[in-house]
Amino acid sequence: MDKPLISHHLVDSDGSLAEAPSEVPKVGILGSGDFARSLATRLVGSGFSVVVGSRNPKRMAGLFPSAAQLTFQEEAVGSPEVIFVAMFREHYSTLCGLSDQLSGKILVDVSNPTEQEHLQHHESNAEYLASLFPTCAVVKAFNVISAWTLQSGPRDGNRQVPICSDQPEAKRTVLEMVRAMGFTPVDMGSLASAREVEAMPLRLFLGWKVPALLALGLFIFFYAYNFVRDVLEPYVQEGKNKFYKLPVLVVNTTLPCVAYVLLSLVYLPGVLAAALQLRRGTKYQRFPDWLDHWLQHRKQMGLLSFFCAALHAVYSLCLPLRRSHRYELVNLAIKQVLTNKSHIWNEEEVWRMEIYLSLGVLALGMLSLLAVTSLPSIANSLNWREFSFVQSTLGFVALVLSTLHTLTYGWTRAFEESRYKFFLPPTFTLTLLVPCVIILAKGLFLLPCVSRRLTKIRRGWEKDGSVRFTLPVDHTLAQKTSHV
Amino acid sequence: MDKPLISHHLVDSDGSLAEAPSEVPKVGILGSGDFARSLATRLVGSGFSVVVGSRNPKRMAGLFPSAAQLTFQEEAVGSPEVIFVAMFREHYSTLCGLSDQLSGKILVDVSNPTEQEHLQHHESNAEYLASLFPTCAVVKAFNVISAWTLQSGPRDGNRQVPICSDQPEAKRTVLEMVRAMGFTPVDMGSLASAREVEAMPLRLFLGWKVPALLALGLFIFFYAYNFVRDVLEPYVQEGKNKFYKLPVLVVNTTLPCVAYVLLSLVYLPGVLAAALQLRRGTKYQRFPDWLDHWLQHRKQMGLLSFFCAALHAVYSLCLPLRRSHRYELVNLAIKQVLTNKSHIWNEEEVWRMEIYLSLGVLALGMLSLLAVTSLPSIANSLNWREFSFVQSTLGFVALVLSTLHTLTYGWTRAFEESRYKFFLPPTFTLTLLVPCVIILAKGLFLLPCVSRRLTKIRRGWEKDGSVRFTLPVDHTLAQKTSHV
Amino acid sequence: MDKPLISHHLVDSDGSLAEAPSEVPKVGILGSGDFARSLATRLVGSGFSVVVGSRNPKRMAGLFPSAAQLTFQEEAVGSPEVIFVAMFREHYSTLCGLSDQLSGKILVDVSNPTEQEHLQHHESNAEYLASLFPTCAVVKAFNVISAWTLQSGPRDGNRQVPICSDQPEAKRTVLEMVRAMGFTPVDMGSLASAREVEAMPLRLFLGWKVPALLALGLFIFFYAYNFVRDVLEPYVQEGKNKFYKLPVLVVNTTLPCVAYVLLSLVYLPGVLAAALQLRRGTKYQRFPDWLDHWLQHRKQMGLLSFFCAALHAVYSLCLPLRRSHRYELVNLAIKQVLTNKSHIWNEEEVWRMEIYLSLGVLALGMLSLLAVTSLPSIANSLNWREFSFVQSTLGFVALVLSTLHTLTYGWTRAFEESRYKFFLPPTFTLTLLVPCVIILAKGLFLLPCVSRRLTKIRRGWEKDGSVRFTLPVDHTLAQKTSHV
Repeated sequence: MDKPLISHHLVDSDGSLAEAPSEVPKVGILGSGDFARSLATRLVGSGFSVVVGSRNPKRMAGLFPSAAQLTFQEEAVGSPEVIFVAMFREHYSTLCGLSDQLSGKILVDVSNPTEQEHLQHHESNAEYLASLFPTCAVVKAFNVISAWTLQSGPRDGNRQVPICSDQPEAKRTVLEMVRAMGFTPVDMGSLASAREVEAMPLRLFLGWKVPALLALGLFIFFYAYNFVRDVLEPYVQEGKNKFYKLPVLVVNTTLPCVAYVLLSLVYLPGVLAAALQLRRGTKYQRFPDWLDHWLQHRKQMGLLSFFCAALHAVYSLCLPLRRSHRYELVNLAIKQVLTNKSHIWNEEEVWRMEIYLSLGVLALGMLSLLAVTSLPSIANSLNWREFSFVQSTLGFVALVLSTLHTLTYGWTRAFEESRYKFFLPPTFTLTLLVPCVIILAKGLFLLPCVSRRLTKIRRGWEKDGSVRFTLPVDHTLAQKTSHV
Repeated sequence: MDKPLISHHLVDSDGSLAEAPSEVPKVGILGSGDFARSLATRLVGSGFSVVVGSRNPKRMAGLFPSAAQLTFQEEAVGSPEVIFVAMFREHYSTLCGLSDQLSGKILVDVSNPTEQEHLQHHESNAEYLASLFPTCAVVKAFNVISAWTLQSGPRDGNRQVPICSDQPEAKRTVLEMVRAMGFTPVDMGSLASAREVEAMPLRLFLGWKVPALLALGLFIFFYAYNFVRDVLEPYVQEGKNKFYKLPVLVVNTTLPCVAYVLLSLVYLPGVLAAALQLRRGTKYQRFPDWLDHWLQHRKQMGLLSFFCAALHAVYSLCLPLRRSHRYELVNLAIKQVLTNKSHIWNEEEVWRMEIYLSLGVLALGMLSLLAVTSLPSIANSLNWREFSFVQSTLGFVALVLSTLHTLTYGWTRAFEESRYKFFLPPTFTLTLLVPCVIILAKGLFLLPCVSRRLTKIRRGWEKDGSVRFTLPVDHTLAQKTSHV
Repeated sequence: MDKPLISHHLVDSDGSLAEAPSEVPKVGILGSGDFARSLATRLVGSGFSVVVGSRNPKRMAGLFPSAAQLTFQEEAVGSPEVIFVAMFREHYSTLCGLSDQLSGKILVDVSNPTEQEHLQHHESNAEYLASLFPTCAVVKAFNVISAWTLQSGPRDGNRQVPICSDQPEAKRTVLEMVRAMGFTPVDMGSLASAREVEAMPLRLFLGWKVPALLALGLFIFFYAYNFVRDVLEPYVQEGKNKFYKLPVLVVNTTLPCVAYVLLSLVYLPGVLAAALQLRRGTKYQRFPDWLDHWLQHRKQMGLLSFFCAALHAVYSLCLPLRRSHRYELVNLAIKQVLTNKSHIWNEEEVWRMEIYLSLGVLALGMLSLLAVTSLPSIANSLNWREFSFVQSTLGFVALVLSTLHTLTYGWTRAFEESRYKFFLPPTFTLTLLVPCVIILAKGLFLLPCVSRRLTKIRRGWEKDGSVRFTLPVDHTLAQKTSHV
């Protein structure tokens, strides 16, 4: 029998319309906490008829919306087909007395374990509920939504609600309810996913941990390095007290190093991935795990790089505000007068600074464009080609501008012996290594022979086989390696 | 009889599929203004068959999409089940002649009263339409969407369309149409909500009025205060003309005060709420209204605080650009030379400024992270724990950094008599009061005995009763007091 | 027979529920490339049963999700009703052997032509597929989604998927699948739109091209103009080497000109449109095409203006960081000492700079508010009145502030002969023309007689006819001319 996968039904088989559907759908809620109350408010607002079951319905009277019917648990579960269980896991078993009335109904588990509870139980709350009520269809949903969002729902835009259940029909019913309440349901498959769904609200910036630690590590390393060169060395060698440099100047030579290294680490994995594909002669082999993780953290690293670069810019602009800057200027003027010099001007120094500053501003401008296009609402409005143009082309331009900015800053300092304090090379020389490798590799990939081979591989060509029947390149791995 | 609440039907009862639904659904539009035309364009684009009823169909020919059928009103309302009424309220009564043809159909009221009209009529346009056509199912919808958005719809992402009606089935039909047209419907309940729905497009930054007025008031107060201290006092006491300070310097001592006070007012209500909960020993009592409103305006106050802080940063960075700054520097140099001083340096002043600037940059960096995460598209992608971490933890760090920034700015000035101009204490001392109270209170809440009690209360514990069967804390009130 | 346009069916005609729908819907995929694999992953994740047809199913084993069934093409197309064709266009014809099995089924064309392919074929891929399989219902969908987004779907928020087909029922089925997979379907009409849909992922910042070229052209013009005045003239006339001004100073006098001219070009078309409406005495005549295009590119021009203004701000703040600034300051101090001046101060210059800077900061602050509210997620949360207030009222305030900023910069320079280098007037005078016209015109439109006529016209009044039955103004053209 042919049937549509999913379809709206337009006509009733007997043409009748107004009977059944004009009844308002009825749902039950077990529980009387904050979440139960917000849920009731939202359900009433979305046109459902709500009955709340409580052990002590009288006490709850003022707290629930007046349109919701408050009654004892036994009465509440009678007529509705869908019942929300808004209770703590430890109280699930108190519902066992209602087993018969609940039989055949849909139970929605909205609970949110705390971190300890999540670690303590191997079984998700929803699976535990399902084991207590084997005759019910248990659906996990709404746990990622806070009671606050539930209440103020419509204002909040498209909040996603992951849903899972072993009963497809029950899942579909809840899915429609989610949609009717103004949220976007996301089907997460069977109830086995409930543990994952319950872990979602416990995540704390999952993808940010490694990049943030990396940035912190780089900051500490470069801060220590600059401290030794800029503060300790003058103190030890010449007895000069330069400790006042700690809060601003040392930070401001450290931040650009962190920003620059992070930016180069955004583009390195793409180069490595391309090299790997070239050597393997196929894109159908998985990258090693470390490379895969690295590729997936580029966005976070890029944003942290931008943050450090922006702080560097603000710190730099603060320099003339410092009292020490004023003293140095005045002292310079006094010195010139005392040595009878009527005019100072160093054309090379002037040019170095002008170019250096201009490149820095442009690099920051580029990075801020990259940062803006990684905002979810903007990224969503770009097609793949646009996104790739911004992230790959503009990003590379930003890397090149930063490299030129660094090189103009360095000028000839890398070759002056006096700059090697304690035999340590100037900081900027340390940071130049990776970016230069990347820029060279990118140049190499542009050579016709390499470029042609890479394009073929990305279209599905393999060294040891024919092209597969596959869709155009610009889809998966090209995306993954879009920074190349 | 068991039935699903809401369910898609997968198979027709007789297994037939292709007959009825393959017909394109037909809708009517009464009216020929801009909105009617945009509506027609969008409906045609979404696959509906559109018939437009006008008093003078010939004149309209070029203005509607060619796929729409243009005819007289009487003919237009014949076959479609859903008819959009895109006319001014004052012309509704001209449709009374069509009463018979319209009977039993769904009328969608898309009208948008002007502010005067809204104030003038106690009854919403939709309710008025329903009273004229008691045999029709009137649905209010689309009024929040501009004709422009209607035309360019798909580009615009998820626009929400509030819908209300007394007939659930009619509402559901329109709801599906809204979805089919690429918008997100939001069910607002019965037609009694129509007045509220009609007021939506008239709102002008509703939640911003009080915070913006507050910021303005603070600005005026601090500007006047600083004017008296920095400009008037030197003029009156010493006859010095410092009026040139008005456009930049006085503004730049005023802005950080406004930013700092606003930031502290973001965190004060959370402290008050926690104190109230501690005293009451329960979270199940409503906060007083003023506290509730205050809690709800924290986001706006925080963003205004960030805006002022950012302006303060830019103003500060502008200081060395001023001509007066240049003159002062040169004059200082001349003075040093004339008094035969060859080197000036004040280690304490140097340190004060370096620390002061560094803390300021860091506080601004923190505030900008807070501002970015309050963008709707980013806030939506965070779970509650992440949002609370940013707003509560990072926000408090920003408050502490700002306090340190202020204290370093002040240094010992609060204790120097010469700083009390006209007996007025330095401005920064005025702003320190509230933040210090907040920081102290936060420290107090961290004491084990207080912290344990607060956690218990937020999990639903009550002084005079047992723990209720309720969902974990991190839902409603914790959200409301997330800044504590 | 009356029937709802679109409606959910709540009850089966025989009240039975659990039979048919509990079967998991089955879909087929032909192809084994990246896109096919991502599609399989996503479909399995959304609860579909997936069968993949390949020429060499064994080789593909590790690459597809384990829940997907891998088999030969002939077997894969047997049972599912919906089959995704994830192959290159040139391989479509290899499926002709499956013609009989595919008959009556829904084929979803997900292919994405490259730019060359798109130009080469006049017929879209989907139409070509439809011509090969006339007995199938071909639906174009998913081509705008990258394989990457497909895999990571739920994280990405509301991605829109345009869909088109000649068979409404097939389209509706796919539409529901799109929704079930967490994306937002957009109905694009018949299969004739497939070419347009296929062109979507090829677009590269369509609306940005003209504004970006305009900004570039303005930049080149003003850069050359400033170069001649600030660098060439001193070199030719006085033999002074001012070439060091090229990287920062000349750029920094060019950027504000570009920003200011672009901003005025944002507001000019609104004034022209209003003038045109006034002269015509109706809003029911189309604007000339150039004006229409101009009106539609205002957002991009405004954002480019903001970008240039922000760069101008950063460049300006960098000025005191330059070595040349330091030298000039010191040289000024030396000169004062040598000429025995003990105090320099020019009250007029001081005031000019203070006001100039303050206005600049305020104008930038206004522009950044405008930029923030044009972020999609924020624009979506504003109603029309708020959006129009920000873009029209605040935008005009920004224009006025910029004009005052420019005028204070100019001060009396426009009237000093020495400022006319090579007879070229100072740059700022060139940029003032358009904004002053706009501000004058706006003032004119506020005169009661003009304003009343304009309001009448925008409410639908016509010089040569009566008011039409139309919805309030604030819908279409008011939006289009919202900057007036």
